[in-house]
Amino acid sequence: MISLPCDVLMSETLPIQDLVPQLQAEFETALAVFLREHPLRSSYTNGLTQFYSELQSFVTRRAKRIRPLLFLVSHRIFSGSSTAHSESLMRSAVALELFHSFILIHDDIIDRSDRRRGEPTLHRLLEAALHSHKPKADRARLGVNAAIVLGDILFALAVETLLEAGFPSERTQLAVGAFLRYVGETGRGELLDVLHAARDVSRVSVSEIQRTYALKTTKYTFECPLMLGAILAGAPKASLNVLIQFTKPVGLAFQIQNDLNEFRDERASGKEIVEDLFEGKKTLLIRKAYDRLGKSDRLFLQTCFDATRLTEAAVNRIRELVLSSGAFVELESDVSRLFAEAIAIIKKSRLSPMQQSEILGMMDYLKTSTLAPPTRPRGSGG
Amino acid sequence: MISLPCDVLMSETLPIQDLVPQLQAEFETALAVFLREHPLRSSYTNGLTQFYSELQSFVTRRAKRIRPLLFLVSHRIFSGSSTAHSESLMRSAVALELFHSFILIHDDIIDRSDRRRGEPTLHRLLEAALHSHKPKADRARLGVNAAIVLGDILFALAVETLLEAGFPSERTQLAVGAFLRYVGETGRGELLDVLHAARDVSRVSVSEIQRTYALKTTKYTFECPLMLGAILAGAPKASLNVLIQFTKPVGLAFQIQNDLNEFRDERASGKEIVEDLFEGKKTLLIRKAYDRLGKSDRLFLQTCFDATRLTEAAVNRIRELVLSSGAFVELESDVSRLFAEAIAIIKKSRLSPMQQSEILGMMDYLKTSTLAPPTRPRGSGG
Repeated sequence: MISLPCDVLMSETLPIQDLVPQLQAEFETALAVFLREHPLRSSYTNGLTQFYSELQSFVTRRAKRIRPLLFLVSHRIFSGSSTAHSESLMRSAVALELFHSFILIHDDIIDRSDRRRGEPTLHRLLEAALHSHKPKADRARLGVNAAIVLGDILFALAVETLLEAGFPSERTQLAVGAFLRYVGETGRGELLDVLHAARDVSRVSVSEIQRTYALKTTKYTFECPLMLGAILAGAPKASLNVLIQFTKPVGLAFQIQNDLNEFRDERASGKEIVEDLFEGKKTLLIRKAYDRLGKSDRLFLQTCFDATRLTEAAVNRIRELVLSSGAFVELESDVSRLFAEAIAIIKKSRLSPMQQSEILGMMDYLKTSTLAPPTRPRGSGG
Repeated sequence: MISLPCDVLMSETLPIQDLVPQLQAEFETALAVFLREHPLRSSYTNGLTQFYSELQSFVTRRAKRIRPLLFLVSHRIFSGSSTAHSESLMRSAVALELFHSFILIHDDIIDRSDRRRGEPTLHRLLEAALHSHKPKADRARLGVNAAIVLGDILFALAVETLLEAGFPSERTQLAVGAFLRYVGETGRGELLDVLHAARDVSRVSVSEIQRTYALKTTKYTFECPLMLGAILAGAPKASLNVLIQFTKPVGLAFQIQNDLNEFRDERASGKEIVEDLFEGKKTLLIRKAYDRLGKSDRLFLQTCFDATRLTEAAVNRIRELVLSSGAFVELESDVSRLFAEAIAIIKKSRLSPMQQSEILGMMDYLKTSTLAPPTRPRGSGG
């Protein structure tokens, strides 16, 4: 079994705000070691060597690692900083990130994305790695085909890694079972996205969008890693319930804030906005803006969804409409309210003061590190 | 937990040839009950109801069920017909078939197939179920996207079902771990297929093709279900090794015979042959025929791989070339030799006479039921 670094994980004294960045660095090393030392690597011979190394570089690309960090911190909170199982824990965190890479790989195929984390998506890398005499369209398809399969392989590897991380077998079985059910729910959220992409913006309701947020962000990004950490730490059922209640407002707030950031960053090219439109993605922001627009502006927005090309002027117009509609300010205040709700849930819970402060410290850390506000929004008034 | 039928499974007296068809019928019922009663179903509301029911009908379509049958028979052989865990066993067999459906769903996307088991492929069904105002090309893509995700969901459900089938936790962990490694190997075989599709037929060697057969047929279709059945029955290591040795010639023989059948069936339209060519599939038969052809015939065959359309005359010419090349007869005799090898491995093993006779009985049953010879081949000489 590959030996992974876990010194920071074992440090009992660090307060959460100092622990997390160090943990993140240690996690990066562990992930890189895991992929470099894994026996699978040596079975990828000849043409497949290249595939493996593309996968390796894709997974180890600079990223926020929200899920493994939430998982590690959650375990620490509920195990009372016990240093037992540190390496098993790091291995499980790696498993969660492998799984997340699988999700990104298939998502990028579904969305026809060319870029991920500032570099080419995996299907694009594999297309380039094929060295085929085939025409470009065929090579593109072969790249996608290889990426579908590599994604599936990564999924299997993630579950295998979690299953064999080294925790006692009863807890392992509980955690893996829970994990697989979260996978199913994430998939259900993705299916809803596909359904919504097939419909006009007027035919997708606010509550339908909130449901996909609940499945894809709340459950997948927040609830799943926090719960798995807690389950493997043997947390009591009451604590698990607090986590479930806490993540509901938190997940929604993060997703909305993320949508808002995409719109308010003046330096951004608006590329993400355009891609979302072309893929038929319905965000709460777009949906709520649509509701507040007049007839001709609605028609314009609807037409943008169905366009095959959008000029810079059109993108600027969309941004302007969304920002001036009032939907932006409404959602900004929703975000504040949701975070306040989350804090209240923790404060009135029966978690220990130490546990409460660590959970909220973690949330603050993530807010600062992942939701840092870009430049001041145009027309948002605040 | 859903209650599944398992009466045939518990019958201790039936000889293998009578048991298997009855087991198959019972398995069909169990699979249908599982999908109908699964709690997941009720979470697929609104537009997703349709997706779930398409998935359900896709999975329960008439099929050979080789993998669950091999699994059930293997467990019976190594548990000494013990009737303990019968329902857990049926649940695990269902899990294997769910997983197989996932493989088929992604394979059909990769191969751009429109038909599977005589009906539309899942991505085609989902495309039709979308009721979108979008143009046809967009709907086709959304159908593919939904099928990628439903495949992933099915994979998660399969592992969850195996994990929670109800076997003692140590055996469960061994079986699920082994299963996930087989998934990885199957994927590796599929990646090799993608690599080979990108190359000219002259640039893919016989041993490379044999390697994909070993990964995709031998390991996935034969070794995996037999091993999982044996592991869950607590079979000793020596018996597991016999199974691994036995499946090597058996898997190769089945795959080759399958390739041969595609070619020799005069009634068939040659559609499968054409599809394989267009997808760049390199079978042992095509590869060996290519080696034996003269320069101009090689050029013709190579050109067929790169064509965008093949007339009936071209298909007939390919068939003629392959059959008359001598490759067909050579591979036919390979198949006989491989089956003889498999029998010898079992006979000289330390398995009990009863176990030996049941394994060979199972192999004979599968030969008859899945490799039944169609009409006499043209030019194969026998």
